[in-house]
Amino acid sequence: MNEAAGRHFLQIPGPTNVPGRILRAIERPTIDHRGPAFAGLGKKVLSGMRQIFATKASVSIFPSSGTGAWEAALVNTLQPGQRLLICETGHFSTLWAKMAARLGLEVEVIEGDWRSPADHRRIKSALAADSAQAIKAVAVVHNETSTGIVSDIPKVRAAIDAASHPALLLVDTISSLGSIDYRHDEWGVDVSIGGSQKGLMLPPGLGFNAISDKALAIARSGGMARSYWDWDAMLEANESGYFPYTPATNLLFGLAEAIDMLLEEGLVNVFARHDRHAEATRRAVCGWGLELWARRLEEQSSSLTAVLLPDGHSADALRRTILECFDMSLGNGLGRLNDRVFRIGHLGAFNDPMLAGTLAGIEMGLELAQVPHRRGGVGAALEYLAQEAKSRF
Amino acid sequence: MNEAAGRHFLQIPGPTNVPGRILRAIERPTIDHRGPAFAGLGKKVLSGMRQIFATKASVSIFPSSGTGAWEAALVNTLQPGQRLLICETGHFSTLWAKMAARLGLEVEVIEGDWRSPADHRRIKSALAADSAQAIKAVAVVHNETSTGIVSDIPKVRAAIDAASHPALLLVDTISSLGSIDYRHDEWGVDVSIGGSQKGLMLPPGLGFNAISDKALAIARSGGMARSYWDWDAMLEANESGYFPYTPATNLLFGLAEAIDMLLEEGLVNVFARHDRHAEATRRAVCGWGLELWARRLEEQSSSLTAVLLPDGHSADALRRTILECFDMSLGNGLGRLNDRVFRIGHLGAFNDPMLAGTLAGIEMGLELAQVPHRRGGVGAALEYLAQEAKSRF
Amino acid sequence: MNEAAGRHFLQIPGPTNVPGRILRAIERPTIDHRGPAFAGLGKKVLSGMRQIFATKASVSIFPSSGTGAWEAALVNTLQPGQRLLICETGHFSTLWAKMAARLGLEVEVIEGDWRSPADHRRIKSALAADSAQAIKAVAVVHNETSTGIVSDIPKVRAAIDAASHPALLLVDTISSLGSIDYRHDEWGVDVSIGGSQKGLMLPPGLGFNAISDKALAIARSGGMARSYWDWDAMLEANESGYFPYTPATNLLFGLAEAIDMLLEEGLVNVFARHDRHAEATRRAVCGWGLELWARRLEEQSSSLTAVLLPDGHSADALRRTILECFDMSLGNGLGRLNDRVFRIGHLGAFNDPMLAGTLAGIEMGLELAQVPHRRGGVGAALEYLAQEAKSRF
Amino acid sequence: MNEAAGRHFLQIPGPTNVPGRILRAIERPTIDHRGPAFAGLGKKVLSGMRQIFATKASVSIFPSSGTGAWEAALVNTLQPGQRLLICETGHFSTLWAKMAARLGLEVEVIEGDWRSPADHRRIKSALAADSAQAIKAVAVVHNETSTGIVSDIPKVRAAIDAASHPALLLVDTISSLGSIDYRHDEWGVDVSIGGSQKGLMLPPGLGFNAISDKALAIARSGGMARSYWDWDAMLEANESGYFPYTPATNLLFGLAEAIDMLLEEGLVNVFARHDRHAEATRRAVCGWGLELWARRLEEQSSSLTAVLLPDGHSADALRRTILECFDMSLGNGLGRLNDRVFRIGHLGAFNDPMLAGTLAGIEMGLELAQVPHRRGGVGAALEYLAQEAKSRF
Repeated sequence: MNEAAGRHFLQIPGPTNVPGRILRAIERPTIDHRGPAFAGLGKKVLSGMRQIFATKASVSIFPSSGTGAWEAALVNTLQPGQRLLICETGHFSTLWAKMAARLGLEVEVIEGDWRSPADHRRIKSALAADSAQAIKAVAVVHNETSTGIVSDIPKVRAAIDAASHPALLLVDTISSLGSIDYRHDEWGVDVSIGGSQKGLMLPPGLGFNAISDKALAIARSGGMARSYWDWDAMLEANESGYFPYTPATNLLFGLAEAIDMLLEEGLVNVFARHDRHAEATRRAVCGWGLELWARRLEEQSSSLTAVLLPDGHSADALRRTILECFDMSLGNGLGRLNDRVFRIGHLGAFNDPMLAGTLAGIEMGLELAQVPHRRGGVGAALEYLAQEAKSRF
Repeated sequence: MNEAAGRHFLQIPGPTNVPGRILRAIERPTIDHRGPAFAGLGKKVLSGMRQIFATKASVSIFPSSGTGAWEAALVNTLQPGQRLLICETGHFSTLWAKMAARLGLEVEVIEGDWRSPADHRRIKSALAADSAQAIKAVAVVHNETSTGIVSDIPKVRAAIDAASHPALLLVDTISSLGSIDYRHDEWGVDVSIGGSQKGLMLPPGLGFNAISDKALAIARSGGMARSYWDWDAMLEANESGYFPYTPATNLLFGLAEAIDMLLEEGLVNVFARHDRHAEATRRAVCGWGLELWARRLEEQSSSLTAVLLPDGHSADALRRTILECFDMSLGNGLGRLNDRVFRIGHLGAFNDPMLAGTLAGIEMGLELAQVPHRRGGVGAALEYLAQEAKSRF
Repeated sequence: MNEAAGRHFLQIPGPTNVPGRILRAIERPTIDHRGPAFAGLGKKVLSGMRQIFATKASVSIFPSSGTGAWEAALVNTLQPGQRLLICETGHFSTLWAKMAARLGLEVEVIEGDWRSPADHRRIKSALAADSAQAIKAVAVVHNETSTGIVSDIPKVRAAIDAASHPALLLVDTISSLGSIDYRHDEWGVDVSIGGSQKGLMLPPGLGFNAISDKALAIARSGGMARSYWDWDAMLEANESGYFPYTPATNLLFGLAEAIDMLLEEGLVNVFARHDRHAEATRRAVCGWGLELWARRLEEQSSSLTAVLLPDGHSADALRRTILECFDMSLGNGLGRLNDRVFRIGHLGAFNDPMLAGTLAGIEMGLELAQVPHRRGGVGAALEYLAQEAKSRF
Repeated sequence: MNEAAGRHFLQIPGPTNVPGRILRAIERPTIDHRGPAFAGLGKKVLSGMRQIFATKASVSIFPSSGTGAWEAALVNTLQPGQRLLICETGHFSTLWAKMAARLGLEVEVIEGDWRSPADHRRIKSALAADSAQAIKAVAVVHNETSTGIVSDIPKVRAAIDAASHPALLLVDTISSLGSIDYRHDEWGVDVSIGGSQKGLMLPPGLGFNAISDKALAIARSGGMARSYWDWDAMLEANESGYFPYTPATNLLFGLAEAIDMLLEEGLVNVFARHDRHAEATRRAVCGWGLELWARRLEEQSSSLTAVLLPDGHSADALRRTILECFDMSLGNGLGRLNDRVFRIGHLGAFNDPMLAGTLAGIEMGLELAQVPHRRGGVGAALEYLAQEAKSRF
């Protein structure tokens, strides 16, 4: 909790560097969540989040982590014993599957190597094989925060449609929302799951669901025994701008500011900025001669980049060195990637010099931690960023 | 969200007036919840909350509202179909019973008139009649936020013991924790439920459970299908100061500060301050000739006071007048008390002149809203506060 | 620097209670004072301050206390050895006279009893007697912060005009600006002097001059040797929104916010609010049976009230008691009023319940400090405030 | 005043990037500057500033810019018509000379080429030639903010001593204090002049003087007519921790925090950090093939670096490009260096990744603005910083 000389570089793939403008909004005095002033705030953030999710459908905001928003998606739409088809794309899809099992669902996992996106062909096969329609929902992580690999949601949708299967499509957008192009309605998603501490630039503490009418109808007659996560009670209170229980008011102040910032910049520009920073990061990684965990360009995340260390080298030792020497936090390898990869978060409130500082910290850290590498990474990134700046200005 | 001239008086019984010291703590930049600096924060708030709950047992902190902490208490200890005995003391006990029913519990309500505390004799009778020990838990609200009436937890504990019944004792301390004397261990409570936005002086967004070993043992072999609220995963991660999913880091910054503030003042002094403000408030109400909703001194809350309006007068009209004219928020009558009572929150970061300002706003509001009353309320409160100050200084 | 339970009541007649909205503005990251973004800020605050001073003339903003703005007024318009006529109205006029003497001016004091405003008849006589026109300026404190007595500036102007004397009129508006009606142009003032920490609701650190064309012309060919306080260099840089040396950027952020707040409320409403709080305070003082230091209604300040203690009673002991028992700061008696009066600041960001809390703290303090008084003061104030609220809503 | 995506890089040589910890300190509610709590603050900052100046002598803190602290040094020690010997080292020494002339001093300038430090030999000659001891003070800028060239103060002291001349030694430490080793007592300085917005990491608004006993004695019997800047009144009030007029309380809150931060890090470490960043910056400049304005290593500033552009290229165009494309502010060429040099501020709250980001922004800007250069600058800086990190960890 100490602040050393200069600013900490929080380059994990979320929580991200919260801008002062949002911190100051959160610092405003709490107001009566049942008073007239609150309704304006409630309506603003609900309407704003619909723009962020690119949906005209319902959005729910929970005082919870993103994990809570996962749980909300499951308990509203599925009954104990019902089957959930989930694509193993990495640590977070695995955790989601575990959660589903703990909640009493029958979980069918399409196993993966953690280095590929969700396989729409195998989804289609699994659904086609499910003539009894026992599968009630398909769960996919849009942007796997543990691997930096993006799944193609429209293709997943097409696979479900091609199988003429009624399963709901549940998508985790926690580390893509507000950073990578995402379209709840256009892509035919039934439940999108988000969190506050990534592209939305807030501290953690808010979970989001965008909910299709189909999902909502199912929830109204089905789902598990539930209370806190219940959409219906939430949406009913939301109509007038209020919440069925005390909301996390100050984080909502921050959310209103975050929505303003994203819309002022323009979502298209926000996405292009993230794409640019991801490409610059990849050029740095290649410049260092290190291996990107994500192998194919179209699958590489624009919000984070996972980097594989050469055999015999510890990613955690590297991260520790960088934290100690340069006051910079990087993401660790999770689950089976433990100590093998490190993850660079380049999402949220971020700009070219911040990225350059980040990549510089890593390049110096590679040197200090004696990880075999070439020096040109930062240079390659700068060359690209300069080119891109030329085309923008 | 506008701030008019001067400070808003947030005199609902929570959220309370968040002190600047806590707001500035919350405004600190978010840190890596998996990094080494976080562990110190995690351990500090967990240990501090044990002091606040007066327990050596386990404490869980959820990114949630207090409602979420209720749900955590239920889903960890009870299975669908099991019976919960709950004392109807007001709106919040009723909501809790509804939640229990929605979660599939069989709820046995000891009905109440909303004007009395939990009746330990009827609890004893109900348990004595339960020879099959079908009742698995007794749920009591310590301080009913809707009525300002406090239940005697040691007597409830004694009633359970007298019936030699193994039911767990679950207690909602949401609007008493950090304001009114409360002792999880000494009083033999199994699960205590708290929230951040009352006596802890934080914005809403954190829910707490203090958990006896007995409750924990039951949870380990029982409870409902659950994930987000699961104590076991939480406590395991907590051992090293971390959390099983992303915690609400910035609210934890504020919590660390709040714990420091409460312990600096001393819990005994904090409780005495709340007792004093409650008594001053009651003297004002009597001075106005209005009726306290809580009838017996030993049952009157030290954190809020509910006041009954004379027949034919609207509590909401009064509250609206006071909000418009004096920028002061008071609590509304909930459920069956709708428009009949208003509630004065005098908990959290509060001192004598703030209370005097609050009572003055109400006295003037009574005049403006033409509620029949005498004028001497504020005077009576000041006389008492001055006396008390004499004895303290 | 510790914050005890609840909010400190800063009821000295400045610095005043700085609103959160302004504190958060001041907390924004400092920007380049020579960069393009700064120019907008500079122009905004300069133009806004013209509205606050009710002038179309020039305004200068110094990184200084209000004392610095006094010095600026003198060194720009007067040469060593020139004569300044100053009306002794209290401690601050006396300090101003001392400053003038230290700066080498010949100071002619119209002595006063500290209980009366500037005497326009004696000003007229002094000027009429000055056939050589040796007097180059007349200095008057609009609102004497040490006594709570307001001088009638239009009458002073009329006196100068009636004497057909070319002396400049210098007016200290430090504790009236933004609180009490003040009109630089309409009242024919040559230099108005202000500070940030009173009606402008900012922390201390900015000094202001509003400057008539006549004063500016004199400054251009006269005044003392000077540099920091030089209007000409300041105004030249201000043309483009910049400053000739590094300005107090973060206080300017706060000033921009303060101007917005005052204009949003409307200066007329701001003045009416201060008038109301002053009248309520006076009714409290009379209710206590204590003596107002200011004797005549039309001379009583709307931003502060000085109260005389009965013989044999110590104002400082009372103030100490109130600070210790109720965490409330009141203004002390200055100079010859030392320990005899205390001063209640009721200016700046202030509302009815804050005033009620303030008066309550004083009423209780009188009791605790055993100052002979009657108890009805707060009650009398509330009766008045309630009546006023009726007429407004 | 808008905050675009990511953080602004404020890399002018002051104001510097104010750390959040200091901004939050400044944001605390203003307190009574005459109350008991203030005395502790006053004493703390006065004592702390003595440590920063490395002096046991008196320190004065003015609500002013650094320019005001210059004026204070002059008006306290010199009388109109007295002679001041000043070394022209750049824009700021020139401004100081202009100020002295405006204040009525007879200014003797040792002319310089703006590319060399103060010439102690010529100082010695000038003093030796002054057999009448008409020169009352020698004024030197320690670290010329316009050129990035440091003067050797001990040699200047030795020159004065060698000439056996009683002239006072006045030193501007505005852009060195808290960044570059500076020792008021050991170096025999009579008046040191500082400001808040550079190495002290505060917003602008405070000016400082450290004052030798000799200077103080002269001030007590001499100096100009003065009031605001008078040391004597200031030091007398400071004895008890107070100020003779309203201090800039909230900036003092920040100053207390800044002192804590500097002493926590240790001044030796602070200086070493600045030295390291300066060397890295110079390596970058050389890597780009550009010319450092400061030619000799021992004269190169550790708090800023001025870079000369190749003939025919506009430094301001480059700065504009960098501001627009990378949201980074760099210092402009001042006076005769207008448009020919740009200045990189690397002082204050700053660390290796922030410097890397800064240099990256410049390297990309050189490309975009088509300034002839080689690309290796950032790489050379990183190589050096990595080496240095190795030796530290």
